[in-house]
Amino acid sequence: MNQSQYPSTLLQKAVTEISRLPGIGSKTALRLALHLLKQDVVEVDTLADSIKELRHHIGYCKVCHNISDTDICEICGNSTRDKATICVVENVRDVMAIEGTLQYKGVYHVLGGVISPMDGIGPADLEIESLVERVKLGGIDEVILALSPTMEGDTTNFFIYRKLQDTDVKISVIARGVAQNDELQYTDEVTLGRALAGRVPFKM
Amino acid sequence: MNQSQYPSTLLQKAVTEISRLPGIGSKTALRLALHLLKQDVVEVDTLADSIKELRHHIGYCKVCHNISDTDICEICGNSTRDKATICVVENVRDVMAIEGTLQYKGVYHVLGGVISPMDGIGPADLEIESLVERVKLGGIDEVILALSPTMEGDTTNFFIYRKLQDTDVKISVIARGVAQNDELQYTDEVTLGRALAGRVPFKM
Repeated sequence: MNQSQYPSTLLQKAVTEISRLPGIGSKTALRLALHLLKQDVVEVDTLADSIKELRHHIGYCKVCHNISDTDICEICGNSTRDKATICVVENVRDVMAIEGTLQYKGVYHVLGGVISPMDGIGPADLEIESLVERVKLGGIDEVILALSPTMEGDTTNFFIYRKLQDTDVKISVIARGVAQNDELQYTDEVTLGRALAGRVPFKM
Repeated sequence: MNQSQYPSTLLQKAVTEISRLPGIGSKTALRLALHLLKQDVVEVDTLADSIKELRHHIGYCKVCHNISDTDICEICGNSTRDKATICVVENVRDVMAIEGTLQYKGVYHVLGGVISPMDGIGPADLEIESLVERVKLGGIDEVILALSPTMEGDTTNFFIYRKLQDTDVKISVIARGVAQNDELQYTDEVTLGRALAGRVPFKM
């Protein structure tokens, strides 16, 4: 679809901007733009304003660097959470996923990404130094590395491990193995190999 | 994913608004919101403003009712187009698709939808009356019905046909048959049946 075919520059501009979003091509952007044209002005303004407000006024927790409306986020400010256990994650989505398990009672440290030379992201672009400082302040028993099992995640895990290995904090990494309800025959070799190597005693 | 888990009301509000868009669930909305947080303020403002401007200032052609920045759209205002042939389509996307073929030299009439009682869309909600007036003004040789081959499209075709059958304008409908590069064995029975019934003499 040639952009010069758009019958209106207003439409073309909106489609161009919407299609900058990840995973949204020009056809989807046009569909969304035409949908917005059919909505109430108030609804469209609310959408646009919520996006602007998000970008202009978002805040981050000063302790764990998770997105937060307050200086100290709800998790870091919760007296029932175990402050001696820090779970290191890539972003807020991972925090929400782990919170969703209802299994974790410690606190978090949100890196804001993983080391990825291909994308020009180095250790200095992430909240790694603040993690090291937080551990060195004392009172931390365990740091759980919960990054994605990718090359970038592994690189970041290793980098953090090297930074913390001189402290007496326990460093652990989340278990890797076959996912619940995955079919063994479709599981990739690396995952299956690790699941075998990391086998544990059977318990009923 | 429970909405109360969002660590920020600003984030939650943006995700709620973005996920109102068709085909965008809360997980995609969160991904888009987090993407926007990483972009320049200027870029995010440009996106939000382009959406607002689209909704507030969009205009329609007074002749064919297509989206247009001017009172008369580029196609209706083009002296080389054949004004005696009107192609009736559902929306601007169909105009763009037909323009993309480079095969059509007539003008359009954009209905703004099709008759769909399930969605509460009746003939009065569409630009059907204005089409009838346009034909009755004279100077029209042919009306080509180019709506989607669905029950709603067929209903609308029939409604327009009834409205125009007393005029001496030629009413045609785009050909239905097997699509280019479709495999015959996977073509549905209705399409295949129509393609057989509508067979034409072979030409080299």
